[in-house]
Amino acid sequence: MVYLNGEFTPKNKAFVGVMDRGFLFGDGVYEVIPVYAGKIFRLSAHLARLQNSLDAIQINNPHSKAQWLEILQKLLTFSPAPNQSLYLQITRGADVSRKHSFNALSATVFAESNPLIPKTKTELENGFSAITQVDIRWQRCDIKSTSLLANVLYSQQAKQQKVEEVILHRDQLITEGATSNVFMIKDNVLFTHPTGAHILPGITRDLVLESAKFCKLKIQESALTLAKLLAADEVWISSSTREVMPITKVDGQLINNGKIGQHWSEVYDYYQSLKYA
Amino acid sequence: MVYLNGEFTPKNKAFVGVMDRGFLFGDGVYEVIPVYAGKIFRLSAHLARLQNSLDAIQINNPHSKAQWLEILQKLLTFSPAPNQSLYLQITRGADVSRKHSFNALSATVFAESNPLIPKTKTELENGFSAITQVDIRWQRCDIKSTSLLANVLYSQQAKQQKVEEVILHRDQLITEGATSNVFMIKDNVLFTHPTGAHILPGITRDLVLESAKFCKLKIQESALTLAKLLAADEVWISSSTREVMPITKVDGQLINNGKIGQHWSEVYDYYQSLKYA
Repeated sequence: MVYLNGEFTPKNKAFVGVMDRGFLFGDGVYEVIPVYAGKIFRLSAHLARLQNSLDAIQINNPHSKAQWLEILQKLLTFSPAPNQSLYLQITRGADVSRKHSFNALSATVFAESNPLIPKTKTELENGFSAITQVDIRWQRCDIKSTSLLANVLYSQQAKQQKVEEVILHRDQLITEGATSNVFMIKDNVLFTHPTGAHILPGITRDLVLESAKFCKLKIQESALTLAKLLAADEVWISSSTREVMPITKVDGQLINNGKIGQHWSEVYDYYQSLKYA
Repeated sequence: MVYLNGEFTPKNKAFVGVMDRGFLFGDGVYEVIPVYAGKIFRLSAHLARLQNSLDAIQINNPHSKAQWLEILQKLLTFSPAPNQSLYLQITRGADVSRKHSFNALSATVFAESNPLIPKTKTELENGFSAITQVDIRWQRCDIKSTSLLANVLYSQQAKQQKVEEVILHRDQLITEGATSNVFMIKDNVLFTHPTGAHILPGITRDLVLESAKFCKLKIQESALTLAKLLAADEVWISSSTREVMPITKVDGQLINNGKIGQHWSEVYDYYQSLKYA
């Protein structure tokens, strides 16, 4: 069952009109929210980011926080899985004809939930590979928009090359992954790109920083060159569904001789404790 | 009536599933093709560009040229208007679950047609205004993709500021308009940005160049600074539905004292002759 514009309906019976601006223009925004032990994780932070995305593209939020909570909690009841991944998408809605500029419309709201099975620590300790690419995306990556074709093409490249992620760099500086934020450790300092127009302000990114602070890591929010990334002691990626994941190979080159780092292990453990706090 | 996946159906009864990757990811491409006196204008060029867009994002073209012609010609019969604007969109199709990377799917094909009423030469001779903005779009603007949020936001800005177009510049150089190509005349030479990853290879752009050649204009395909644009003798924009349109004011500053140029008039006339050739 999925949620669409006020109704809960089987996924294969959920349709939007061809004039929906989500379909015609990628004119919408979305969120992915993990649920652990039946509890929606960091809902307020996700709804705050959703609001920022909506504001940036001039769509009125169709629901209050209480209404969102009601919709999302109802969605969770359709599966017995204690851990789930909620997806919600708002598009500008459908007009009578196609035109880039827009009128005030009734927004389309779609949401669904799927079981979430995060990798175990043992699985993560094998480490993962990434490749790097020039970041050709638009310059409002802080908006979590559904105009995702660039990210789609990067992710397909990752799939074809059998790696976990494509790490992007713009003007020689690492920005983020195609579907994640990127971190590195060098000499016990944690580096990650500062928030701004070139990266998504990840909720998990914040949680990783929160965890790193707890672990007494020094944090420096500054962009790094690819060369520095390759010379890192540890490289991690983070996203709501992948949490914090160690990358031990970039462009075929081993990071720290392919060994999982101690800092990752500590940050991972603290992150896990937050999930059920 | 619109066309959707093999059927002709009323527009308000044409629906796509919420799992359609056009809706979830802006994972599709499109074309807009003018029709004059019942004849589809430069169909081969549009279908060739469509093929390039499809190839760039790894979607198989679901139809042969003959099939496209059949679909589009049938669409034209639903309106008595001799001049129409055909819209066709292909998305990657719907998968069972949402994931950035993709599997082989059955593409979604949507097409519609609307009456087209190009402005008369007299109307065009009033001239039009544009504003300029930094081009923050992705760096594959040669793909005519439906991930159009940046273009939507620019077009809305144009609407709010009551101007015809937003002219974009990247790294100080004029690329194109949010929904058009941009030309300028200086000392009897026609300048326009060369094709490549930063602009759409407009079919109308080609027709304008073809017309300019007929009019014995020298053509230089090179990018220009904003300062050069503001000092131009003539500025034009072109798109399939707007044809070639004179811009006489940019960022509130008059171009050539706000006077329509003689070159525009000649190129416009030749362009008109091509439409019914």
